[in-house]
Amino acid sequence: MRFPDVPTFRGFQAPGRFEGEVRDLEVVQGEVPRDLNGAFYRVGPDPQYPPLLGNDIPLNGDGMVSRFHFEDGRVDFRTRWVRTPKFLAERAAGRPLFGAYRNPFTDDPSAGGISRGTANTNILWHGGRMLALKEDSHPVEIDPITLETIGPWDYDGALTSATATAHPKVDAATGTLIFFGYAARGETTPDIAYYEADANGHIVFERWLQAPYSSMVHDFAVTEHHIVFPIVPLVSDLQRLKDGGPHFAWDPSKPVYLGVLPRRDPEAPVRWFVGDPRFASHTMNAFEENGRIHLDMSVGDSVVFPFFPEINGAPFDPEAAVPYLSRFTLDTTKPTDDFTQTRLSDVAGEFPRINEAYATRDYRFGYLSMQSGIPDPTMPGSYTGMRFDLIGRVDHRTGALASHYVGDASATQEPMFVPRSGATSEGEGYVIALINRYASMHSDLLILDAENVDGEPVATLTLPLRLRNGLHGTWLDSGQLADHEASRTDRPEQASS
Amino acid sequence: MRFPDVPTFRGFQAPGRFEGEVRDLEVVQGEVPRDLNGAFYRVGPDPQYPPLLGNDIPLNGDGMVSRFHFEDGRVDFRTRWVRTPKFLAERAAGRPLFGAYRNPFTDDPSAGGISRGTANTNILWHGGRMLALKEDSHPVEIDPITLETIGPWDYDGALTSATATAHPKVDAATGTLIFFGYAARGETTPDIAYYEADANGHIVFERWLQAPYSSMVHDFAVTEHHIVFPIVPLVSDLQRLKDGGPHFAWDPSKPVYLGVLPRRDPEAPVRWFVGDPRFASHTMNAFEENGRIHLDMSVGDSVVFPFFPEINGAPFDPEAAVPYLSRFTLDTTKPTDDFTQTRLSDVAGEFPRINEAYATRDYRFGYLSMQSGIPDPTMPGSYTGMRFDLIGRVDHRTGALASHYVGDASATQEPMFVPRSGATSEGEGYVIALINRYASMHSDLLILDAENVDGEPVATLTLPLRLRNGLHGTWLDSGQLADHEASRTDRPEQASS
Repeated sequence: MRFPDVPTFRGFQAPGRFEGEVRDLEVVQGEVPRDLNGAFYRVGPDPQYPPLLGNDIPLNGDGMVSRFHFEDGRVDFRTRWVRTPKFLAERAAGRPLFGAYRNPFTDDPSAGGISRGTANTNILWHGGRMLALKEDSHPVEIDPITLETIGPWDYDGALTSATATAHPKVDAATGTLIFFGYAARGETTPDIAYYEADANGHIVFERWLQAPYSSMVHDFAVTEHHIVFPIVPLVSDLQRLKDGGPHFAWDPSKPVYLGVLPRRDPEAPVRWFVGDPRFASHTMNAFEENGRIHLDMSVGDSVVFPFFPEINGAPFDPEAAVPYLSRFTLDTTKPTDDFTQTRLSDVAGEFPRINEAYATRDYRFGYLSMQSGIPDPTMPGSYTGMRFDLIGRVDHRTGALASHYVGDASATQEPMFVPRSGATSEGEGYVIALINRYASMHSDLLILDAENVDGEPVATLTLPLRLRNGLHGTWLDSGQLADHEASRTDRPEQASS
Repeated sequence: MRFPDVPTFRGFQAPGRFEGEVRDLEVVQGEVPRDLNGAFYRVGPDPQYPPLLGNDIPLNGDGMVSRFHFEDGRVDFRTRWVRTPKFLAERAAGRPLFGAYRNPFTDDPSAGGISRGTANTNILWHGGRMLALKEDSHPVEIDPITLETIGPWDYDGALTSATATAHPKVDAATGTLIFFGYAARGETTPDIAYYEADANGHIVFERWLQAPYSSMVHDFAVTEHHIVFPIVPLVSDLQRLKDGGPHFAWDPSKPVYLGVLPRRDPEAPVRWFVGDPRFASHTMNAFEENGRIHLDMSVGDSVVFPFFPEINGAPFDPEAAVPYLSRFTLDTTKPTDDFTQTRLSDVAGEFPRINEAYATRDYRFGYLSMQSGIPDPTMPGSYTGMRFDLIGRVDHRTGALASHYVGDASATQEPMFVPRSGATSEGEGYVIALINRYASMHSDLLILDAENVDGEPVATLTLPLRLRNGLHGTWLDSGQLADHEASRTDRPEQASS
């Protein structure tokens, strides 16, 4: 049981691996608003065992879910691993069985046939279920109160894809869940399966399509009437996997495609808009306007992940990798297949979030992690060489950026927007973010007034421990939690161990 | 919920307050010996709530028990607060109810009648029970596997004293437990109740006596035929408590008394040996030799605790406070009431431990936390201004000291001796200690070969979190744990919350 002495597993990124709770977190600044009641969930990779192959990329750890439960000005913290089939198999064996990130050819023979999913990327609440998501596998249901694992969830057999994205969208008007799986017929296949599930969580629409090439389709975009699949040239290849190579490589010879299709239309052809190669990862939001589709994403000139190599051996370019919030606009009323890209901020940023009540519709405000300085690949505790020292709010109406500096030797994780109870406007609410404190090696939970992001924080809570970088999360308000509590008596027994 | 910005509650001593586990601790150096099977328990103060009065001394936190379970070269970590009556009352109230250390006159009125014990000082395994101990109250039984609290334990009503020491002794030859309570008729009373309990945990002897003055009687000494109560002038006074003052004060006008009485003799007068004032806290061991009693303790010229003031207002003297392992020898065959003190090491040291199979008998080896440098009252993470950067082994036969430097910006907590399975000599075994790493703000668990303390460690395990300074602990071997496991089905339900 020894992790390799590399930055991925040392310093702030040293494996966490603890499960448990802290009741009533200390509030070191301000006061927790009494109108903020519910729970903030986030998940991130936290390896149960050292890498089977001696080293690993930071995205491959087992999903560790953290829950911050807010009630009447107090916050309780709990953290627990998702008991994925992989996690349970490795715990039973007492050692790692699964090899490289999304490369089953590197596994121990005893791992054959067991899902490789780590459930480490996002948390979804939909249809009365809390799901931990990883784009290479099926969701895993967890209990939103105890964080105990219920088990993999395939929508009562209706999830025919081998995979499901970690970035589904909920149509704000209907409660419909729109999601997809890529590599849907198995790793490196170009197949994409697109689903819609009604507000009760039943899949009501399914359609399959093929991407122009096999690549990471980490996120996508949904508007009132359309769905858009961004295909960026972070390509996958079965032979490379068989040769023991990395799952993804950056191929700047390939164009970017934005595949557009009308929602819930089983027949309409996919329309592929084409542009120069570039990298885009997370969607802030998308909406349509008179036949045009606006798609706001963090976009870089090149791939943001240093651990996925350039296919021709060129070195990682940290400058070109820097992502900026940008707007793709494509016009479905015109016959040409081009699209435009407009930079929305000159401050580098990623992990974009919105008021989810405005998802798929025109919106005004977005929130994201931003970086005031230049990228530094030696920066500790980062997947990318970036360190996000700002929490930003962009106002698409005015173009204004408000930002909050999270402190020296500090970085923010994904900022979460939480609407204020009874809010009457889009921007009214709080921004919640975990802050890495590198000097004191602990985490804080920061609460900002979303309409006053650059002001004094509403509250700062401190954790007596360090939560390594997570990925994404969600918020459940106290009403949703109460509904769940009322309904959970008839749920199946939870997975043990 | 905010702790005061003082060193007692900040930096490495920031409240821990988490409960949970880490399975299969990472081994960053060496290998965990496969013949080291059992569990290491330790306890220390970790406040559930900030001090009611705005500040507090470090000894007053709620008892947090940690367990390191060793099996076949793997170590699992678990930590959990003892659910004392105080803890449960404060959790139910959601706020602190108890005021200053051992001063009930400073409590919230709603705390009246509830035991103030924090169970934060030591862990005892005897008679099939694991007890968390604090010298101002009754023991609290906990489950040695889950660490869940069973409840206060009064020896089936036979514990007539209001208190029980945190430093009981087990007669190595008979398995008898020898213990006492001081302030046995209530805080600041000079009464001492002395008990012996047989190997099954039944109290079989009780005797009451009075100390020459009321003071902290933190530890004592037991030999084959005698018991010795060291009375040092860290005095208590009821009126000071009523005036809101500290429980203890240092009164260098008072002599030290060593009260000797034969074991299990209900009549024999206590013989008080007298000496100049000095401070002595923890006993390493004691034994008798032709009517002479040798009592090895850490002894300083003055009180080691900066937070218990000199009674006449003199400032704390860090130099005079430095404790050195010293031997008191008193001769019961002579009519004079004097005793001698011999320094056993010129290196400052505290938290002495031995091979418990030699408790109350002549012995050769002792282990303790030691300090290579001069004391520095600004040292972080210390109760006393001392930082213990050495683990020492003293050899009483040769006088030799072997020591292990635990690293820069590091300190050791109490070192625990664990005999090697099947050992045939006193010194054969391991020394286990938690190490504070101040630069990286985490804890390591160090395993040394007890016969090669100054050599390369046998293993270093790393924790992904910081365990604030604990006090004392114990070791249960795997046989004791298995016996307990076999017998626990018929135990009462555990306390909840």
